[in-house]
Amino acid sequence: MPANSMDELVSLCKRRGFIFQSGEIYGGLQGIYDYGPMGVELKKNIKDSWWSSMVYRRDDIEGLDASILTNPKVLKYSGHEDTFSDPLVDCKDCNGRFRADHLDDSKCPLCGSINLTDPRPFNLMFKTAVGPVDDGKNFAYLRPETAQQIFTNFKNVLDSNPKSLPFGIAQIGKAFRNEITPRNFIFRVREFEQMELEFFVKNGDDEKWHEYWLEERLSWWEDQGVPRSSLEILDVPQDELSHYSKKTYDLMYKFPHGVEELEGIANRTDFDLGSHSKNQNEFEITAKVTNNKESNSKLAVHNLDEKKWEIPYVIEPSAGVDRAFLAILNEAYNEESLPDGKTRTVLKLSKHLAPISAAVIPLKKNDNKLVNLAKDVKDQLQQVSNRRIILENTGNIGKSYRKHDEIGTPTCITIDYDSIEKNTVTLRDRDTMDQKTIDIDDINKHLLI
Amino acid sequence: MPANSMDELVSLCKRRGFIFQSGEIYGGLQGIYDYGPMGVELKKNIKDSWWSSMVYRRDDIEGLDASILTNPKVLKYSGHEDTFSDPLVDCKDCNGRFRADHLDDSKCPLCGSINLTDPRPFNLMFKTAVGPVDDGKNFAYLRPETAQQIFTNFKNVLDSNPKSLPFGIAQIGKAFRNEITPRNFIFRVREFEQMELEFFVKNGDDEKWHEYWLEERLSWWEDQGVPRSSLEILDVPQDELSHYSKKTYDLMYKFPHGVEELEGIANRTDFDLGSHSKNQNEFEITAKVTNNKESNSKLAVHNLDEKKWEIPYVIEPSAGVDRAFLAILNEAYNEESLPDGKTRTVLKLSKHLAPISAAVIPLKKNDNKLVNLAKDVKDQLQQVSNRRIILENTGNIGKSYRKHDEIGTPTCITIDYDSIEKNTVTLRDRDTMDQKTIDIDDINKHLLI
Repeated sequence: MPANSMDELVSLCKRRGFIFQSGEIYGGLQGIYDYGPMGVELKKNIKDSWWSSMVYRRDDIEGLDASILTNPKVLKYSGHEDTFSDPLVDCKDCNGRFRADHLDDSKCPLCGSINLTDPRPFNLMFKTAVGPVDDGKNFAYLRPETAQQIFTNFKNVLDSNPKSLPFGIAQIGKAFRNEITPRNFIFRVREFEQMELEFFVKNGDDEKWHEYWLEERLSWWEDQGVPRSSLEILDVPQDELSHYSKKTYDLMYKFPHGVEELEGIANRTDFDLGSHSKNQNEFEITAKVTNNKESNSKLAVHNLDEKKWEIPYVIEPSAGVDRAFLAILNEAYNEESLPDGKTRTVLKLSKHLAPISAAVIPLKKNDNKLVNLAKDVKDQLQQVSNRRIILENTGNIGKSYRKHDEIGTPTCITIDYDSIEKNTVTLRDRDTMDQKTIDIDDINKHLLI
Repeated sequence: MPANSMDELVSLCKRRGFIFQSGEIYGGLQGIYDYGPMGVELKKNIKDSWWSSMVYRRDDIEGLDASILTNPKVLKYSGHEDTFSDPLVDCKDCNGRFRADHLDDSKCPLCGSINLTDPRPFNLMFKTAVGPVDDGKNFAYLRPETAQQIFTNFKNVLDSNPKSLPFGIAQIGKAFRNEITPRNFIFRVREFEQMELEFFVKNGDDEKWHEYWLEERLSWWEDQGVPRSSLEILDVPQDELSHYSKKTYDLMYKFPHGVEELEGIANRTDFDLGSHSKNQNEFEITAKVTNNKESNSKLAVHNLDEKKWEIPYVIEPSAGVDRAFLAILNEAYNEESLPDGKTRTVLKLSKHLAPISAAVIPLKKNDNKLVNLAKDVKDQLQQVSNRRIILENTGNIGKSYRKHDEIGTPTCITIDYDSIEKNTVTLRDRDTMDQKTIDIDDINKHLLI
């Protein structure tokens, strides 16, 4: 049972320390958010799960972590300087500025004037001057996607870690878009994080691999608690495809504010490597690319069978970390009626994603024996876990359970006087609320962390 | 035995896929680097080690992951708008611009002219316009340090995860400084990553905690392979302290280019929370702070004993991820003479930092039985490891050993015909080069990963 509204999620996120508005004490910064103590862990667990599925559990994908500041030439040849824009109109009376495609009628939404300019393209990339002389020539873009530097590092990765087709390069990192109207909490923001794989294949094998990656990604989302039944696969209509795409599947998810894109899986053809390669006419590039005389590198692989160099096709599964966070949170969100007539809010997160893997709770907060034993149990568990275990020393078991239901902690471990006398602890399960008493020495076995 | 020169490290980093120049195919971008397949893993392992020591293994520190784009008011009250600058001189003849304190004499290093302006402050923060209207008023800074948003989120963190003094908030993330002359590989760069802890203590306890954190940090560096004997502790002279600091220890490391700061551990007093707090005159702030009428929050804690609200002091251990990377790489770098007269390059990285935990190498690359068994062994190891295990299928054992020495893989596991017939594998140790034969079922026990 997902949340009833975005407000429920926003409220939980603030109350429990998942997400705060950035710069809130100074009135905030529109479309920018900070991840709090619980948010940072959930986000890290989502990223680790993606990285593990892409880089660790396979033998055909290498990782990359490139810079945010980007040489403008990269975004010239990628097409972003020309095409990465929204149509804007200005109100000549009040100087307001709006997205043309967001105006319901042709009036200024601020002052009601009909004295508007024609729509003009507004580039969504952030720019910043670099170096001591700000003459308009020395600048970099904040990357609008992580993908481009995968392409520009193609030879560097291949030369240092030889691979033959098919193979991929994966990257997780921040990207920035100067959205005109950021909205819907962390769904449409100006600073966000992406998880992108560029998977290089032989021209002709591209359609097969496109289908393969669609299935792989659906399976990954299922493991994160977003089942196939919650996703619609949109085969993006030909006239709505991006300039580089031959075919794109959008995974559409029912966010609290409506059905929108969670991940895009695109067949980018040989557009990208073809665009960034030197000596383009040595290759049979199928995509329409800008003539490139500035690149110093051929971005091609040697086809040993046909004894020629060729530019691979690219399949790109591209997911947003923040959108993943929002979808996973929404799917996990439950309000349950309890037998006593009360209700509880519980996040039924997959175990590997929960911000806190287990909470160790001493029955009383001022009893040194209980607290020290709880600390020992926590330390012992933390040593074998790569996720966070906490000592929850509030002295109020009921309140602790409510907190850990709301942040999705799979197990609470209560330390009481039996723990000292009989070496036992009580495990309380988040989803069933069942409690059972076990021997302290068996905790690791029961938690499987 | 560290590297003989920075060039040796730069060369290794490029050759083995640790670090590439960003946008290299377009001539690069000065002071900006990309981390390749091996670099991304080493960097991630360094960050995970820091996070684990700060957040997971303690009970008094919470994590945070705030935005890069920062509300200008944050950096107004932090003092960065006024003081975060270098003195620059312009050459009136050739329009060159230089750091005044880097000029050996008073001549232009480009054209030799003595026709220079007086030094003027040049702010090191990157700025970018935000929103559709670029009128100079709507902009954000790229944060010059991660610390400030820890202070501005102080109440958010505390309200969602109540704590009493002393406690800390830790953050890892990118920061940006428009360095006039970036240099020395990844030592002085324009885009870098920081690991910062702000530890909040009672005024009066600050000096004790400052000494405590100095020891903690020395101990952490030791665990990463940078022993105390490689670090000098500089008690920064009073007249060189930053505006916010009462006392600072700099951990100085002998990088290949010279002895420079690896980490700073500062007593920031109540300057930061005092600067960002509203109603400042309700508190006895000891630091000299700018009168703040724009903050909407009191950044104080309730002192239950003395029944008053007070603003804590802050101890800040602040380390650079990229500098950590460079120091750790340099300490691990060894060139060894072998009995046969040859030499080998080997990175003696701590096991928990090695980009690849283990490499599984089939004796022949085209023998399906060997390769499939190697894959099984890899998959089995990867399931219990949170770091990367790889299948190294080059068919050349000697070449594989050389590669894995250079990237610091602690163990190579060779799969040969005995593996099929007798269920054994050969483990080869990176540091001793000793080989031993063990049963396949005992691999996990031997590797302890």
